[in-house]
Amino acid sequence: MDDTGAYTQTELTRLRRRHMHARYDKDVVHDILDSGLVAHVGYVAGGRPIVTPTAYWRMGENLYFHGSAASRTLETMAEGVEVCVTVSHLDGIVHARSGFNSCMNYRAVMAFGQAVEVTDPAEKTAALDGLLDRLAPGRSKDSKPSSAQELKGTKVLRLELNEVSAKVRAGEVGDDEEDQKLDFWAGIVPVRLVVDEPVDDPDLRPGIERPDYVTKIRLGR
Amino acid sequence: MDDTGAYTQTELTRLRRRHMHARYDKDVVHDILDSGLVAHVGYVAGGRPIVTPTAYWRMGENLYFHGSAASRTLETMAEGVEVCVTVSHLDGIVHARSGFNSCMNYRAVMAFGQAVEVTDPAEKTAALDGLLDRLAPGRSKDSKPSSAQELKGTKVLRLELNEVSAKVRAGEVGDDEEDQKLDFWAGIVPVRLVVDEPVDDPDLRPGIERPDYVTKIRLGR
Repeated sequence: MDDTGAYTQTELTRLRRRHMHARYDKDVVHDILDSGLVAHVGYVAGGRPIVTPTAYWRMGENLYFHGSAASRTLETMAEGVEVCVTVSHLDGIVHARSGFNSCMNYRAVMAFGQAVEVTDPAEKTAALDGLLDRLAPGRSKDSKPSSAQELKGTKVLRLELNEVSAKVRAGEVGDDEEDQKLDFWAGIVPVRLVVDEPVDDPDLRPGIERPDYVTKIRLGR
Repeated sequence: MDDTGAYTQTELTRLRRRHMHARYDKDVVHDILDSGLVAHVGYVAGGRPIVTPTAYWRMGENLYFHGSAASRTLETMAEGVEVCVTVSHLDGIVHARSGFNSCMNYRAVMAFGQAVEVTDPAEKTAALDGLLDRLAPGRSKDSKPSSAQELKGTKVLRLELNEVSAKVRAGEVGDDEEDQKLDFWAGIVPVRLVVDEPVDDPDLRPGIERPDYVTKIRLGR
């Protein structure tokens, strides 16, 4: 990381192709990370790649994820293996007149490094509160806190945002000029994540209102 | 694969924890794969894990993905390295009364194996048509076919569905019984991908109507 508001490019994060889509600005990276809930975390176990979808959340220059203390995945990652955390959002399908130039609009972030286990109790509690508040802003103050035993049964990992790149494809159809006169339709079909009307738990105690904050989650575009 | 309509469990695909979420039925796996457009493909390069988001599509018992013949990622994968292709859909946020039991509803598939490059011209063309028709059913017949040079510049990879598992969390809030009497709201916030009104290319020739098929794409739930 340098102090110009951008992540330093490295051998791993420098895009060899389609440079025009590469972004290293922290605000772009943060924005993509703050629009998603599920990351795909890759690591190597027994020489083979494993890609696990998992909830993640960002606090400052750290990404967090968590799971059961008994999880094989988290156990492996907590041992300090290299991970690649990828977050992507599909924003649209780009139909060019030529099949060849058809593509998708998307935003993605790849973060590389070694995840470390969060062992400090205060940081661990703050991180787990951060997850609840990511899922619904204010939820950590309006739900039952974890017991000591539950905290013990939960492993929280932190990956510092250091070796990071974003890739963004946005905008127009990219047909070659000579294809623009063809008699095919061309355009973009936008795609986005939406939150639907919440469903109350059927065992909800009488008189409990659904809090407004549960739908105030930032997601997708 | 056995002939009972399920994928055979292996060391890699057998879930050690949360067995109740594991699925090996082909129809469940196919359904999850056919609801998505972007896979996260993991592979190992120089000993480090790389997770790349990429368009994918299924034809029978094969997954396909593609890219530029000059792509480093596809080059590495075409050399026969092991890949892990993961597809996941977020279906909802599950707010339990206790932070500890809060979670997400999701569907995910992980497929392991070695991808091979599709070199047979007929299979390659059929596969790329399959992608266009996945993006919009019928599009391969209503767009400009790839030229010989474009086909040469495109690499198509195939991964046979063999070592595959699905993981599905659906349904209710999972609070412990003693927490159900607490005065916190609990419920599920459903999440799904939607397709918005298409945007015509501004350079569209006069008189070209938008085909109905462009919004008939299967996506998400």
